[in-house]
Amino acid sequence: MAKKRTHLIPHAINPLRRMRVVGRLVRRVVKKPGSSPGIVVHTGERKVEKVRIRFLDFDDQHLNDAERPTIDECLDLRDLPTVSWINVDGLHEVDLIRRLGERFGWHPLVMEDIASTGQRAKIEEYAEYVYVVLPMLSWNAERGHVDAEQLSLVLGENYVVTFQERYGDVFEGVRERIRSTGTRIRARGPDYLAYALIDAVVDHYFQVLETIGDHTERLEEQVLDEPREEIMHELHHLKRELITVRRSIWPLRETLGSLQRSETKLFTDQTRLFIRDVHDHAVQVLDTLEALRDVVGGMIDLYLSSVSFRTNEIMKVLTIMASIFIPLTFLAGVYGMNFDDMPELHLSWAYPTLVGVMIVVAAGMVLYFRRKGWL
Amino acid sequence: MAKKRTHLIPHAINPLRRMRVVGRLVRRVVKKPGSSPGIVVHTGERKVEKVRIRFLDFDDQHLNDAERPTIDECLDLRDLPTVSWINVDGLHEVDLIRRLGERFGWHPLVMEDIASTGQRAKIEEYAEYVYVVLPMLSWNAERGHVDAEQLSLVLGENYVVTFQERYGDVFEGVRERIRSTGTRIRARGPDYLAYALIDAVVDHYFQVLETIGDHTERLEEQVLDEPREEIMHELHHLKRELITVRRSIWPLRETLGSLQRSETKLFTDQTRLFIRDVHDHAVQVLDTLEALRDVVGGMIDLYLSSVSFRTNEIMKVLTIMASIFIPLTFLAGVYGMNFDDMPELHLSWAYPTLVGVMIVVAAGMVLYFRRKGWL
Amino acid sequence: MAKKRTHLIPHAINPLRRMRVVGRLVRRVVKKPGSSPGIVVHTGERKVEKVRIRFLDFDDQHLNDAERPTIDECLDLRDLPTVSWINVDGLHEVDLIRRLGERFGWHPLVMEDIASTGQRAKIEEYAEYVYVVLPMLSWNAERGHVDAEQLSLVLGENYVVTFQERYGDVFEGVRERIRSTGTRIRARGPDYLAYALIDAVVDHYFQVLETIGDHTERLEEQVLDEPREEIMHELHHLKRELITVRRSIWPLRETLGSLQRSETKLFTDQTRLFIRDVHDHAVQVLDTLEALRDVVGGMIDLYLSSVSFRTNEIMKVLTIMASIFIPLTFLAGVYGMNFDDMPELHLSWAYPTLVGVMIVVAAGMVLYFRRKGWL
Amino acid sequence: MAKKRTHLIPHAINPLRRMRVVGRLVRRVVKKPGSSPGIVVHTGERKVEKVRIRFLDFDDQHLNDAERPTIDECLDLRDLPTVSWINVDGLHEVDLIRRLGERFGWHPLVMEDIASTGQRAKIEEYAEYVYVVLPMLSWNAERGHVDAEQLSLVLGENYVVTFQERYGDVFEGVRERIRSTGTRIRARGPDYLAYALIDAVVDHYFQVLETIGDHTERLEEQVLDEPREEIMHELHHLKRELITVRRSIWPLRETLGSLQRSETKLFTDQTRLFIRDVHDHAVQVLDTLEALRDVVGGMIDLYLSSVSFRTNEIMKVLTIMASIFIPLTFLAGVYGMNFDDMPELHLSWAYPTLVGVMIVVAAGMVLYFRRKGWL
Amino acid sequence: MAKKRTHLIPHAINPLRRMRVVGRLVRRVVKKPGSSPGIVVHTGERKVEKVRIRFLDFDDQHLNDAERPTIDECLDLRDLPTVSWINVDGLHEVDLIRRLGERFGWHPLVMEDIASTGQRAKIEEYAEYVYVVLPMLSWNAERGHVDAEQLSLVLGENYVVTFQERYGDVFEGVRERIRSTGTRIRARGPDYLAYALIDAVVDHYFQVLETIGDHTERLEEQVLDEPREEIMHELHHLKRELITVRRSIWPLRETLGSLQRSETKLFTDQTRLFIRDVHDHAVQVLDTLEALRDVVGGMIDLYLSSVSFRTNEIMKVLTIMASIFIPLTFLAGVYGMNFDDMPELHLSWAYPTLVGVMIVVAAGMVLYFRRKGWL
Repeated sequence: MAKKRTHLIPHAINPLRRMRVVGRLVRRVVKKPGSSPGIVVHTGERKVEKVRIRFLDFDDQHLNDAERPTIDECLDLRDLPTVSWINVDGLHEVDLIRRLGERFGWHPLVMEDIASTGQRAKIEEYAEYVYVVLPMLSWNAERGHVDAEQLSLVLGENYVVTFQERYGDVFEGVRERIRSTGTRIRARGPDYLAYALIDAVVDHYFQVLETIGDHTERLEEQVLDEPREEIMHELHHLKRELITVRRSIWPLRETLGSLQRSETKLFTDQTRLFIRDVHDHAVQVLDTLEALRDVVGGMIDLYLSSVSFRTNEIMKVLTIMASIFIPLTFLAGVYGMNFDDMPELHLSWAYPTLVGVMIVVAAGMVLYFRRKGWL
Repeated sequence: MAKKRTHLIPHAINPLRRMRVVGRLVRRVVKKPGSSPGIVVHTGERKVEKVRIRFLDFDDQHLNDAERPTIDECLDLRDLPTVSWINVDGLHEVDLIRRLGERFGWHPLVMEDIASTGQRAKIEEYAEYVYVVLPMLSWNAERGHVDAEQLSLVLGENYVVTFQERYGDVFEGVRERIRSTGTRIRARGPDYLAYALIDAVVDHYFQVLETIGDHTERLEEQVLDEPREEIMHELHHLKRELITVRRSIWPLRETLGSLQRSETKLFTDQTRLFIRDVHDHAVQVLDTLEALRDVVGGMIDLYLSSVSFRTNEIMKVLTIMASIFIPLTFLAGVYGMNFDDMPELHLSWAYPTLVGVMIVVAAGMVLYFRRKGWL
Repeated sequence: MAKKRTHLIPHAINPLRRMRVVGRLVRRVVKKPGSSPGIVVHTGERKVEKVRIRFLDFDDQHLNDAERPTIDECLDLRDLPTVSWINVDGLHEVDLIRRLGERFGWHPLVMEDIASTGQRAKIEEYAEYVYVVLPMLSWNAERGHVDAEQLSLVLGENYVVTFQERYGDVFEGVRERIRSTGTRIRARGPDYLAYALIDAVVDHYFQVLETIGDHTERLEEQVLDEPREEIMHELHHLKRELITVRRSIWPLRETLGSLQRSETKLFTDQTRLFIRDVHDHAVQVLDTLEALRDVVGGMIDLYLSSVSFRTNEIMKVLTIMASIFIPLTFLAGVYGMNFDDMPELHLSWAYPTLVGVMIVVAAGMVLYFRRKGWL
Repeated sequence: MAKKRTHLIPHAINPLRRMRVVGRLVRRVVKKPGSSPGIVVHTGERKVEKVRIRFLDFDDQHLNDAERPTIDECLDLRDLPTVSWINVDGLHEVDLIRRLGERFGWHPLVMEDIASTGQRAKIEEYAEYVYVVLPMLSWNAERGHVDAEQLSLVLGENYVVTFQERYGDVFEGVRERIRSTGTRIRARGPDYLAYALIDAVVDHYFQVLETIGDHTERLEEQVLDEPREEIMHELHHLKRELITVRRSIWPLRETLGSLQRSETKLFTDQTRLFIRDVHDHAVQVLDTLEALRDVVGGMIDLYLSSVSFRTNEIMKVLTIMASIFIPLTFLAGVYGMNFDDMPELHLSWAYPTLVGVMIVVAAGMVLYFRRKGWL
Repeated sequence: MAKKRTHLIPHAINPLRRMRVVGRLVRRVVKKPGSSPGIVVHTGERKVEKVRIRFLDFDDQHLNDAERPTIDECLDLRDLPTVSWINVDGLHEVDLIRRLGERFGWHPLVMEDIASTGQRAKIEEYAEYVYVVLPMLSWNAERGHVDAEQLSLVLGENYVVTFQERYGDVFEGVRERIRSTGTRIRARGPDYLAYALIDAVVDHYFQVLETIGDHTERLEEQVLDEPREEIMHELHHLKRELITVRRSIWPLRETLGSLQRSETKLFTDQTRLFIRDVHDHAVQVLDTLEALRDVVGGMIDLYLSSVSFRTNEIMKVLTIMASIFIPLTFLAGVYGMNFDDMPELHLSWAYPTLVGVMIVVAAGMVLYFRRKGWL
């Protein structure tokens, strides 16, 4: 019966899950403290076999869509007047990042940050480009938690370069719009493209929230119906997921806010309006997270109160049983004694009388408990 | 007896309620992430059968009040010098929104936001119009929770357009004032009309709060009188309603604050005074919500403490009964043994003496418990 | 014995109290949402039979002190160069408010706010006058809670008009100072009078705090000495009073702060120094409230912990009694069996030996519990 | 044994302590609300028998150190070009304060604040002098709590006047430095003297914190080793002391911050650097207080969890004993029945068999509990 | 078995640990309050035997690396145009600090702060130099807690002087980079060196966090698997470490933020970019700390709930056992009575019937408990 329930945490992978939970909170240290900044070292797990590069180079007329070009093909895009979007999946080939960075003129710290995962969401404005770090969240159904991946985005005058930790992303919609002629994205500059990518990331948060919200709903139903012990484990798990997600998204509010107010010329006023929109969405995600936290906190209270209540119920049953029968057993014990001289034992009406007394005592206790509201 | 109590949660619809609770916190995702912004897609439930349009076109002399005009009639209002208020109930005919938006010159993002429900309260200023999103709350007595509906309001130089999710609103009072000649609303511009509508929405919050406050009162009475288990469920439910309402209204403080400070020329200084007033009301609603949250939190503490206290009481009864009778039963057991050689059994004064000892033991226990304050 | 204790909540009026508690948090709605702003409607209970008007008109030479003038007498004060203080007790004669307001040139919203009680403390500056709303708190000993009354104060160039909900106020001291010739208040303008009134209101908060502080002290003593169940009810009640008071006073910090910084010419620099002083007092009241909240929170923890602790103590007694006697009773039971063939029964040393064994078992249990620290 | 423990709260004075605890939070009201501001009334306990005046008048060459001058001697210091520090212990001779104040030209509100204790820490800048209120904390070992005394300091062009509530202070170090020729304090102006006094007050907070920290340590040790019920009382007491101290010191952060930024010419730039230093110290005190609060909160959790845990342990013992012996007692009871026709009674192997069964049942229960991890 | 677990707190040193815990929160007082500021007194433990001085003097061409120079050698570095980094391990030779300070022209307060440990992280800008205080954290595996050491750094036009409390630091990486010709650090000024040192300190925080994170993980596993009592002690310990670390690092956010915005000319714009990077890292450390606090808080809840739940389970077993056997024992007791006249005893079917009744009663109880879901 218990097996039919949907569990938030897939059982088979519990041990694994436990070992990785805090790992997702604390950034693993790879670089030796005191080593030079701007040295591009890949930190974090290597999540893909092979780095994959894709680029889309377009203006409103032309489109060049290359699936797995070499890095050299990309370097030339710098000088084309068209909008180029280079996407790199996988960060462990630091040499590639360095070559791209040097060709496009990025600060060494930018290159370092691209390669070291676990960065906080931020925006850094430089004279000729803007560097944005965003967490890309997805629900890992197999392990039952939220995976966070680091998206680095560099926006230059005529290019956008994005770096992801693994294959598969939320940008398919954007790619389709680029591939269709006549869409707004084809007509506008790279700043609009950057916006579109950020918007896709933030929009995806809502899907993650929806999944978490569904789990919350299901757990709430269980807490209300039949509070079992594992529910507390699942509530703890859920709460931790919310902590993890909140920690990833929290800096976004500020990041997108300063992007909106920033004075860089790379963003047109038109695009800034769109950035305001995506900022609103991020704030809404955070509001929802806060509300979910409150709801989960309330569910923990509810669970604990139901445990207390049940202990109370159990105690009542015990107390009622014991209080009725212990005195009766004592009475029976008295007349089971073997004294030579117990005159009651020889009276013929003694036994029925005692039985009567017992009934009265029992009835009295029952009445007492009923008056107390325990029965 | 239990049936006579008024329950916050109507029982018959419990399962339904549970399935929808978090749904009201988390915005359902309809749009594919990465799809183009400014594409007008209706998200959220379709709450009306048919979109209904009403308009009121007036100045201090004339009034044109049309119940169900076609959209085309509305489009012409743009060019009239009079104040026009177009109200649309139902958001699923996105084409209608688009046509209105294009005629009145709205930004695509505005049109998208009108159609997608679950927006955060906000104000967006554009050169020629101001876009305001407000939650419109109402108490759904049938389901026992607060329903939130999205009100979009666009204020232009000579018009106000409002979009609601369903029929029925809180604007009847405003309409009546428009219909009476000589009222202030007839004499002033569309900014005053916009204010009047916002004011009606915020004023209605007080009615919702009053309903919630009544439920809180009733629950408090029950917690103080007879704390049953279901009360914890109802307190949880109440707390969640407060979370939901707070989440809807919270952004209003900031929204109305920035409306008051905004530099748009669409609001006259006179109307700004009124906006300050409605801002004060919104802040007051939030203050009250916070206070209610604190009160409900205190009620949860009270409930939990009363459960602990009752467990304590139950334990006392059990302990007293057991501690008095268990030793006596033991004594009776001893003289029920069948050893050949138990000299006490053959003494004639042994039985009365034992009974005396039993009474002394029992009285001693009772005294002990009385000294401990348990009796 | 229990009757001799001083209770925070007078028992006789409990039902009444419960019905009104949340009522003091949530403003009752009288006006229909959507009705015209600036329409002067009296909201809230009518707390006096008859509206009473008093005025004091004075400069450093003359004094005119009228107990119950008609409203018409007051209207003429407008044009006198002397300082006039008109005080109105009772808000239900809205016509009176309107006539005063129109004569003195107040904005319709001001008139509306004067008549509708339950306003948040605020200050509104207009070109020719300043409108201040303050809560006037008093301890209602009969009902055992804090009553809040709305004080509206309008300060003009040569007048102060105050509106209260009922007779009786904290202004007697101010009146006495006005009646004595040569006091500072006689020599200064209406702004100083306004300050003196606000100061009297804020000073009175300290008396309310003192009463609440005394109750807190008494409850704390009880929690430490003999935690009974009703204490939790009283702590809850106390906490709610603190919530109510805090909610009333909280906006004052900001209100008096902005009064101090305001650029209105109605306040002289000299008076502003006094306003700074009263602002300090308000902040101090809030600090004390926060500290009291923390103390009450700590008392709730203390109470709960003492309930847990006592449950623990009760359990110990039960466990000790049961653990000592249940095994002994079993032993006695064994030798009470009626098997034909129980050789022990026929040994003459068997009974004394068994008694010895019983003593050893009991002593062993006692030792065990003593080692555990339970005895 | 229990007597050897050091208790935070000296037992003998418990009743007294309880009556005064909240008294330290809530300022007692002496002045009638509505009475004139600037009327110098001494509020608070009178803590000294006789007001004592000391002054130090010095420049880098000369020093005039008078132990108990009359007030008239002090009034002349005003006109000397040297730096004068007048210190007054005891506030109940309000006439003295008034005479000083009038001679030095202070605002009536300053005089009122000097005389009424329980002020919030603050700084008030006037054209010719600066008025600073600071709490002076000390650990009252006898009563087991923190005493707060109000220090008022007025800094003028060539003087510093300080007012304390009682004899004994933390300024001996400063006096010694003044008495030694050639120290920096002799060479600098009154602003440096004011700084030195404030610094001495703030430095003393660290000593109070150290005492509280020691108590915290000792209590923590007890919570970890042997959680007794009184510990919860002591934790509550400790928490309240932290609340009281925090409430006193909290406004200092802001006060010293604004002193640092203030534009008064009474402070030289050189002295401002020192003020920054003392501001840092105040912030550090607050940080430590917050950390201590968190630690004490954690100790309360720890205590409560240990009570729960012990209840759990006690229940286990009871359950094990009862579960093993109750069934056995039942079996013994069965064969103690007196039915004529119980064939088992007459079988010779019945008794040994039953004993065997009993051993098996008991062993089974023991095994079961061991498997559950309860044994 | 229990011995195989890894404990956060090494057992052997428990007593020692307890005595020092709060000591790390509260700064010990050495200086007498009221003593002169700017008097350089070493506060805090003396952590090294002998003060050790090292300097590195370099430009892109030359390098002078001296292991244990005398202080006199260092004083001459002031006038060289090269970048000099003087590092002092050990603060108890205050004379040395004073000589350095006077030679380099530091404010007396700076010298005092260098010598007194337990300072809050801060930055102080003077005209010719910048003084930075940072906590240097390390995990003390032996004692099982985080050690904090104070790093003072003074950056002048051509020098950096650092002071540490003990030997051993996190700067080896920086030294290696200086020793290699052609690195960026050799080519840039002292501001870059200062940045590199700060960066090394902040980077090391991540290693401390990782250790704490690992402990958290291990504890979480234990809480989920087998919640023993000591876990609560370890959770308390962990929470306190987080409080301690947070208290040390918290001011860094502000410190590095103001360093970034500061207008001192000692930092080039290029270096400011790096400071922004290290600021981001510090914020990330704080975010992670907050998340860890939340997780640990959740674990405490989880532990408490599991204790409640187990109490509940234990109660169930007891109640089931008692409720089944107590009534049966009573029945057996009844027929063990010795009344002469108990007709049932003489019926031949009475005994089997009673056994049947007993079975029915027992089965009834079992069914009842199963229906309640307790079995």
